[in-house]
Amino acid sequence: MKNLKVAILGFGNAGQAFAKLLIDKKEEIMQGMNYGIEVVAITTRSRGSLVSENGVDLEKACKDITESAKFDENDKSYSNITSMEVVEKVNYDVLIELTPLVIFSGQPAIDHIKKALKRGKHVITANKGPIAWAFEELKELAKKQNCLFYYETTVMDGTPIFNLVNDTLRFCKVTEINGILNSTTNFVLEELAKERPFDEVISEGKKRGFIEADPAMDLEGWDAAAKTAALLNVLMSADITPNDIDRTGISGISVEDIKKADERGNVIKLLCHGSMKDGKVAGIVKPTEVGKSNLLASITGTSSVVSITTDLMGTISIVEHDPEIEQTAYGIFSDLLRILSKL
Amino acid sequence: MKNLKVAILGFGNAGQAFAKLLIDKKEEIMQGMNYGIEVVAITTRSRGSLVSENGVDLEKACKDITESAKFDENDKSYSNITSMEVVEKVNYDVLIELTPLVIFSGQPAIDHIKKALKRGKHVITANKGPIAWAFEELKELAKKQNCLFYYETTVMDGTPIFNLVNDTLRFCKVTEINGILNSTTNFVLEELAKERPFDEVISEGKKRGFIEADPAMDLEGWDAAAKTAALLNVLMSADITPNDIDRTGISGISVEDIKKADERGNVIKLLCHGSMKDGKVAGIVKPTEVGKSNLLASITGTSSVVSITTDLMGTISIVEHDPEIEQTAYGIFSDLLRILSKL
Repeated sequence: MKNLKVAILGFGNAGQAFAKLLIDKKEEIMQGMNYGIEVVAITTRSRGSLVSENGVDLEKACKDITESAKFDENDKSYSNITSMEVVEKVNYDVLIELTPLVIFSGQPAIDHIKKALKRGKHVITANKGPIAWAFEELKELAKKQNCLFYYETTVMDGTPIFNLVNDTLRFCKVTEINGILNSTTNFVLEELAKERPFDEVISEGKKRGFIEADPAMDLEGWDAAAKTAALLNVLMSADITPNDIDRTGISGISVEDIKKADERGNVIKLLCHGSMKDGKVAGIVKPTEVGKSNLLASITGTSSVVSITTDLMGTISIVEHDPEIEQTAYGIFSDLLRILSKL
Repeated sequence: MKNLKVAILGFGNAGQAFAKLLIDKKEEIMQGMNYGIEVVAITTRSRGSLVSENGVDLEKACKDITESAKFDENDKSYSNITSMEVVEKVNYDVLIELTPLVIFSGQPAIDHIKKALKRGKHVITANKGPIAWAFEELKELAKKQNCLFYYETTVMDGTPIFNLVNDTLRFCKVTEINGILNSTTNFVLEELAKERPFDEVISEGKKRGFIEADPAMDLEGWDAAAKTAALLNVLMSADITPNDIDRTGISGISVEDIKKADERGNVIKLLCHGSMKDGKVAGIVKPTEVGKSNLLASITGTSSVVSITTDLMGTISIVEHDPEIEQTAYGIFSDLLRILSKL
């Protein structure tokens, strides 16, 4: 039985759900893949960190965070070590980057990943920033260092997109991508269609947790642009950033616009699009009318869709229905299984 | 450079499209996978067969079939050898089973596959019969013989279903499957909704090639039942046959039924379903009302969908849009690439 040492940066909802999945599937991984998984470090920004060469107590870590919102300072593995210190100094095999997204730079996640790759460590990230802002560089670095670098969770949680194309559409060239990838705007547009005032919709969304305290990132299309850049960087080798996406948010959309679209048999969705234009990959995020009988119109609430057009396989779409945090956890977990299968 | 010897049984539209793809991608396979592909046999029922140890001339084979609807009797590789004789006697590495479907038995395809596996040969089939009628036996035989056995094309052409679950949803247990998988019934239901008489719809469908000379296999739900059995056998280890599917066709659906559904905001679709019931996998094919804003309602014409629910990844759906014969060819091709990647 071999051991794989894992360091986890960030321990929010996704990290905790991932830890629970790891606890649940520990035996199955040992039996199915002949590997024991040891979490040798977990860092947080304000809840303390844990470091232990022999593996931290994952069940206790989850319990402490749930019950007292921080790690136990009396635990022998408790530490004030920072994420970057873990990246640079701890002895791990796989870095799992789950720090919060900083949408306009992708930092400090990019630096964490670079440093880990430079040390020859495998990396998994659920943070779309690095894939949206620095994918080409990270990909090349991983290749040079002979490291595995996976990021399935960055778009549509654990729903296979990157692995779908990589593993099951071999030899296909992706020529076009379309999708609905931001649930906040999807929710707002649906509620506006019920003729509810914009402010009321936003404040309800905030209460229900769909909408961030500062909703601009979503409403102005930045989140969708980051996901579009990530998709185009990975699947079409675009080498672009969210700044390169032709981006229009939904704040200009009125109830009147939605009514007029309805009269034409349409709904308005914030669509993400990518295709070749003058020899380069061009990405667009903008509110678009789609027919009510179109698949895109059926994507409501927190569900999302990506349609992929390729030279050999025409167009296929993959839909994630009503995801919960467990689906994010599964995405990280599936990347870890992928690493185990290639070691 | 190594060589992989391939024998193709059946050379209808799918076989020809596959051959063209193989010709197109020959160089890419050599460069990317370090293998040359040699087609050492092609059989047909009434157009002659070709056999050559050193590889038949694939371009000439395609040209002859297109131009004169049969192979060239003066070709030195021309032969009257039967499919079973090829299976038993020819020196090949991979058997590609593309003989026509015999929906109530899966034969002679099942026997071809068994015999090839017993000889220790890898097998690809695009014929859903064997997967619907004899999957468990064939799977076990392939395992025992240490042979690869792939069948992605049998449901939804080249759209990844089986490979999607196998490669990208590891450790997930499939708990439920839903889908729309038969385009003939999809077309008929849509046309009936326009208040067109049943007979007129059927004869137009026949003219346009959507509907077989004997439409009963589709209209009575046998084709959908075979695909459902195949899905449940592979993804839920059901070990059932199409006879075990609780099957209702669409011949009992009237224009009146569709109108009433429409008044309720619904459309009628022939749905395929599978889930656990009393500890066993139960499959159902039956006309079902679905809301017009449901994803299932957006699946029209020749498009199809499978929704897969798993314990770890919730529900995801995969949609194939307006497939052509090239997508069938890609399915076979992708199985061949999969074999190459595992040799």
